[in-house]
Amino acid sequence: MNVKDVIYNNFVTWMDGDAENGDIVISSRIRLARNLREIPFPHLLDQAKGEDCLKIIKGAWQESPAYQQGQMELETFDHLSSLDRQMLVEKHLISPGHAETNSSFRGVVLNQDGSLSTMINEEDHLRIQCLLPGLQLDECYTLAQGLDDELESQLEYAFDERRGYLTACPTNVGTGLRASVMLHLPAMQMTGQTNQILQNIGQLGMTVRGLYGEGTEVAGNFFQMSNQITMGQTEEEICTHLRAITVQLVEQERLLRERLQVDLKYQLEDKIGRAYGILSHARIINSNEALSLLSDVRLGIDMGILQGIKPNDLNELVVAIRPAHLQKRAEEEMDATGRDIKRAQVIQEKLQGIQ
Amino acid sequence: MNVKDVIYNNFVTWMDGDAENGDIVISSRIRLARNLREIPFPHLLDQAKGEDCLKIIKGAWQESPAYQQGQMELETFDHLSSLDRQMLVEKHLISPGHAETNSSFRGVVLNQDGSLSTMINEEDHLRIQCLLPGLQLDECYTLAQGLDDELESQLEYAFDERRGYLTACPTNVGTGLRASVMLHLPAMQMTGQTNQILQNIGQLGMTVRGLYGEGTEVAGNFFQMSNQITMGQTEEEICTHLRAITVQLVEQERLLRERLQVDLKYQLEDKIGRAYGILSHARIINSNEALSLLSDVRLGIDMGILQGIKPNDLNELVVAIRPAHLQKRAEEEMDATGRDIKRAQVIQEKLQGIQ
Repeated sequence: MNVKDVIYNNFVTWMDGDAENGDIVISSRIRLARNLREIPFPHLLDQAKGEDCLKIIKGAWQESPAYQQGQMELETFDHLSSLDRQMLVEKHLISPGHAETNSSFRGVVLNQDGSLSTMINEEDHLRIQCLLPGLQLDECYTLAQGLDDELESQLEYAFDERRGYLTACPTNVGTGLRASVMLHLPAMQMTGQTNQILQNIGQLGMTVRGLYGEGTEVAGNFFQMSNQITMGQTEEEICTHLRAITVQLVEQERLLRERLQVDLKYQLEDKIGRAYGILSHARIINSNEALSLLSDVRLGIDMGILQGIKPNDLNELVVAIRPAHLQKRAEEEMDATGRDIKRAQVIQEKLQGIQ
Repeated sequence: MNVKDVIYNNFVTWMDGDAENGDIVISSRIRLARNLREIPFPHLLDQAKGEDCLKIIKGAWQESPAYQQGQMELETFDHLSSLDRQMLVEKHLISPGHAETNSSFRGVVLNQDGSLSTMINEEDHLRIQCLLPGLQLDECYTLAQGLDDELESQLEYAFDERRGYLTACPTNVGTGLRASVMLHLPAMQMTGQTNQILQNIGQLGMTVRGLYGEGTEVAGNFFQMSNQITMGQTEEEICTHLRAITVQLVEQERLLRERLQVDLKYQLEDKIGRAYGILSHARIINSNEALSLLSDVRLGIDMGILQGIKPNDLNELVVAIRPAHLQKRAEEEMDATGRDIKRAQVIQEKLQGIQ
């Protein structure tokens, strides 16, 4: 396999809409932060030390069964263009911050379907991630832990008996685990209940962020919910807790959708119909409007108001309309207006292909 | 023939979009105001005098060849429901004010295709009208004058050698002639030039009004332009003058459309595409929004951006989505929300039927 195959493939595994609760829980993610003992954290690495660090990681990595069986590939960022790295961000496989450098000692490890990945020298030396469709936190944890075990057998992690895994940012010390789910909550938004609910979630130790994690806006009614606390709880407890809150939110969203269908049937069908009508006929559309309308269309599909479109197609579109993916498809750099035109074209082709 | 046939037919002749300049000049109208000598103007008529007046008109009317050949029919408003009268307003065959009463001495004379009509005891005893598609002011005048001559041979009109035809409102004294055209000027609106142009038109002795004449709003970029002056000019001069200004406006609108297609190609196609998308998928739509979007779609057809829809269909839709027509079609009285739902359905059916 090749990292670029994953970058240029339209589909990665989290986009599969048929997973458990996949209508509301788009994806689940587990991320483990790990660092090497006696090597400075990434933000303190100079070129020479950075290369040493990469060498150690690469060595351990090449001993792992995943590498030896050709299931995963490592690529450093000096071999990926800025557009390639941005496409990885848009596919949720690396963080926006990590994509910013073309450093030769920073990079990514990926498997074929994008379910398992590791960021090298992002905020920590290693950020092992598993990203699956639907509500699959336990499965994510098992897979991430498997890769973690393989690497740990070759590496000396910075670990303290009392504090647990040591990390560059103190908010990750302990388990080093961040569990998150990407939720699609349009009914909650439409009924104006999101703020109240998000406030309650905060009191339960959870954080809610936008489509691309920390510092990004909520768009298209997509919410990323993750645990705030990484210490004083086991990995299993963190996953169980997040899963329980997610299930509650899913039930609440379903209830609100049913109520909408009863109380505001025509208004709902109107909103969804218009969204579909605009998406299939616009010639210029910006990212936020497109996400918002795709969210309406997604709701229409989930509620059986629209037919013929699959959740997979929409998950794919949400990524395909982002700037780097659009420019890759057009094979040229484009300004905002150019992208808005290309975006409308991509959406139209996709929706026409489906009909 | 029967007046109700014209009321319930979706199509009347002015809706024909293939007439001369019919892409911009929707219709032309000539209206002649006439009154009977020695009978008070309609607003001064009590029931007894009103019935006398109607009797005289009916008598003269029954002598006319049009009546005797069964080409035109007279109906008084005590035989037409409020909804029926409203449908005549929506088809531009009587004025909104005339529709308000169910008086037994007020009424209408119509021919089969709605091109020739006469309001009885509206503001004047007789308002003879001819309404044709496209720019056909001379043809309208010839037809209206023909009917006028037939009636004048049987009736004594209130006529003064110095002042001409006498009318209830002094603004109509003289020729009693009002010539008007219904214009569709979307490019003028989009480029923000309407106000300036309308101001200039005012200085040329023309008045601009909305879709349903005096006191109605401009909607869907439809403008009704008519002569302000009825005295001191012959009928032919009035028609020639209005025709000349209309031709200028048509040329200006065409020029602006060409410029839009060059300078704002994508924005234009986007606006038109979205309008079509919303109209074909909305479930609730109010009258103003529908008119405005139909105007965009009409522009798209005229400019070759949209295919498969005929101007006739859109002219028909502009009338079919009005409140009385919607309620007639639904065969029930409906509140505003009910009409908004029915309107969306009627538009969708029409557009689907076309595609």
